Amino acid sequence: MSEVRTLKVALLGCGNVGAQVARILLDDADALAARSGARLELTGIAVRNIDAERDVELPRELFTTDADTLAKDADLVIELMGGIEPARSLILTAIQNGACVVTGNKALLAQDGPTLYEEADKAGVQLSYEAAVAGAIPILRPIRDSLSGDRITRVLGIVNGTTNFILDQMDSTGAQFADALAEAQRLGYAEADPTADVEGYDAAAKAAILASLSFHSRFALEDVYCEGITKVSAEDIAAAKDAGFVIKLLAIAEKITKENNGNGGGEGISVRVHPTLLPREHPLAAVRGAFNAVFIEAENAGELMFYGQGAGGTPTASAVLGDLVSAARRVVLGGPGRTETTTGHVPALPVSASTTSYYVGLDVADQPGVLARIAHIFAEHGVSIEIMRQTIHRDAASKNESAELKIVTHRASEAALAATVEAIKGLDVINSVTSVLRVEGV
Amino acid sequence: MSEVRTLKVALLGCGNVGAQVARILLDDADALAARSGARLELTGIAVRNIDAERDVELPRELFTTDADTLAKDADLVIELMGGIEPARSLILTAIQNGACVVTGNKALLAQDGPTLYEEADKAGVQLSYEAAVAGAIPILRPIRDSLSGDRITRVLGIVNGTTNFILDQMDSTGAQFADALAEAQRLGYAEADPTADVEGYDAAAKAAILASLSFHSRFALEDVYCEGITKVSAEDIAAAKDAGFVIKLLAIAEKITKENNGNGGGEGISVRVHPTLLPREHPLAAVRGAFNAVFIEAENAGELMFYGQGAGGTPTASAVLGDLVSAARRVVLGGPGRTETTTGHVPALPVSASTTSYYVGLDVADQPGVLARIAHIFAEHGVSIEIMRQTIHRDAASKNESAELKIVTHRASEAALAATVEAIKGLDVINSVTSVLRVEGV
Repeated sequence: MSEVRTLKVALLGCGNVGAQVARILLDDADALAARSGARLELTGIAVRNIDAERDVELPRELFTTDADTLAKDADLVIELMGGIEPARSLILTAIQNGACVVTGNKALLAQDGPTLYEEADKAGVQLSYEAAVAGAIPILRPIRDSLSGDRITRVLGIVNGTTNFILDQMDSTGAQFADALAEAQRLGYAEADPTADVEGYDAAAKAAILASLSFHSRFALEDVYCEGITKVSAEDIAAAKDAGFVIKLLAIAEKITKENNGNGGGEGISVRVHPTLLPREHPLAAVRGAFNAVFIEAENAGELMFYGQGAGGTPTASAVLGDLVSAARRVVLGGPGRTETTTGHVPALPVSASTTSYYVGLDVADQPGVLARIAHIFAEHGVSIEIMRQTIHRDAASKNESAELKIVTHRASEAALAATVEAIKGLDVINSVTSVLRVEGV
Repeated sequence: MSEVRTLKVALLGCGNVGAQVARILLDDADALAARSGARLELTGIAVRNIDAERDVELPRELFTTDADTLAKDADLVIELMGGIEPARSLILTAIQNGACVVTGNKALLAQDGPTLYEEADKAGVQLSYEAAVAGAIPILRPIRDSLSGDRITRVLGIVNGTTNFILDQMDSTGAQFADALAEAQRLGYAEADPTADVEGYDAAAKAAILASLSFHSRFALEDVYCEGITKVSAEDIAAAKDAGFVIKLLAIAEKITKENNGNGGGEGISVRVHPTLLPREHPLAAVRGAFNAVFIEAENAGELMFYGQGAGGTPTASAVLGDLVSAARRVVLGGPGRTETTTGHVPALPVSASTTSYYVGLDVADQPGVLARIAHIFAEHGVSIEIMRQTIHRDAASKNESAELKIVTHRASEAALAATVEAIKGLDVINSVTSVLRVEGV
């Protein structure tokens, strides 16, 4: 330890996560030096407003508004500003100056990752972004390195804590979406403008990153089919519960082959985010509150699950610092940066090419022959029924009778299911289609 | 891809895991080349008996009994023979010849890891052993790399599938240990001689490896306190169940500080394997059958869990190949092997210095004042009681009355608890101490 180097670390952004990263860099300097083989000297923190209030008290002399100069004079640059610009330009500047970069910027990676990876490769530096998906959970490194000798076939992730909290509230209290959202906002789990979370955009960016690493190809945000949780009703949750399911917002990346692509669809990767029914005994079903988890199916490894805190300043800072120490080790030991291994361009398939099971809830007239007519329509469209359950409701006052029909299908294509539902709506015995929800893990 | 190198791969051992590794190397050669940046050519498989029956059909010309020559002429050596010798000498030979080594040999690593790590460092080659702990689950790399900027405070692992299967059977069917073991043997989950599993020795070797990586120091098998599951009775399981717990065999590595070391014990690391009560809502409690999982608590990341298949030829082969591809990438890119970061020698503490909560079951006389006398003894020894529950049994025939007392303590040292139990045994109102079991996760 006699000739320990010092590496200059520039921090861009000092929000929730950035402030904790700065704190740990200052407080744990000795331990980080022992792990890295170099002292990690925080040379500055670039912010828009030096006088803004922050969670952590940090030396005022570290702050600067000149991000560009800071980034140019560092060995390691941590970008935690978020958003596309100026983050993108600053990262490119840092890379071109030979710095390794650690970022948690999922939106930027999902939109323009390939440019950044290529520039890092060219410059021979490391670009790491463990913090961009599932906060503290080590998931990107295991996918990229530990599973590099295997073939991943499917990834199912609970990667947005806000929506998991809301759905969990709805499931445990019977609340409607709006009330559960208000509760999440009150507790600080949801932002004042919750759009990015509840519409699934945040999960979609993470899905693109997970898909790219899992299937060694490039998937961008526009390749991801995205459906949020705003239309999930208390009635959907209750019906799911009654049938032994829980509803989760899943980020799904899945290999579609001739065997599982439904009727003659293409081969490629389906990347999508949507509310999904999971059997209550599935490992992901037990992921409660704001926790995250990623479930992976691989040809040889079988089923794996990674579970932990998906957000929060301190947990996410752990992921940032893990990347930083790894990058520092690489600088100290010498040798080029890690290359992303991309072997080709596997097509991203539209959601209509993917297959899942479906849960379909119908409010139908209580007449003889209704079940048979509905079953016939499913059969005509090549959608096989796994479970069909009918419950009769009698309204004593009006003497009306109606029946509730709950159907779980075997795997079918989106297209076949949509055509089935369309045809069923045309039947005179149908009062309404109450839910159409995708099912995984059966 | 015009100038792709070929790296020679020697496989030592062709059991359950080795045969699957060979199969994947042959079948998935193109995908592995794409991931590695080099073709991985299997040059030979060293075995004791070339004509032995194997699960997988492999080209006969690959087999050899001359492991030494094979290992000397390879760029990458995979050691899956198990046992100490000749595995140890062959690995050292390979390292000294500049080969990177991948091994799954937990017994060797727990006994003589430091020698191997030092030799690999000196030679500038990579020694990887992800397969040695928890089969297919990527756990060692996340601990070493992803959490390198954090401080792990505790690791709780279900790392032996055989004992988890047996305990799970006992829990779900009420079977006694001997019957559950017989069932596990019938289904192939337990070997004819189950000693290494049921006495906890296999888990202890894994605990030593987990502790070494988590706490950046060297822990060997003799540092691990080890207690197997042979004395766990159906009655213990039933009592645990009744109190809302499940019994798991846990490998535990935990930082003992002034704050949690009980009354004036030392500071250091407690590494131990023993049957442990876990609350049924703890994430590890849901790990059923032969699955493995490792639960990690870190200062910044908080709680993390890694779950998957802990054994089996194909899943474990996935971990071996992940290490192999990573080692090949390193050879292709150049640069030195990864150095294990050890910063000092943190003492391994005896089990008497560790603290846990305890479950104590007592069969006592049903007399006034018994509870008070027992509570007094706990207090005298500084062991604080969290829950105390008394159930009265009346035998109508004999008119005997007895009471069953179930006590869960707050965290206490092993020494204090042992002294408490000793003192309680001396009371005239005690018929017997029915269980003393450690509790975690409360």
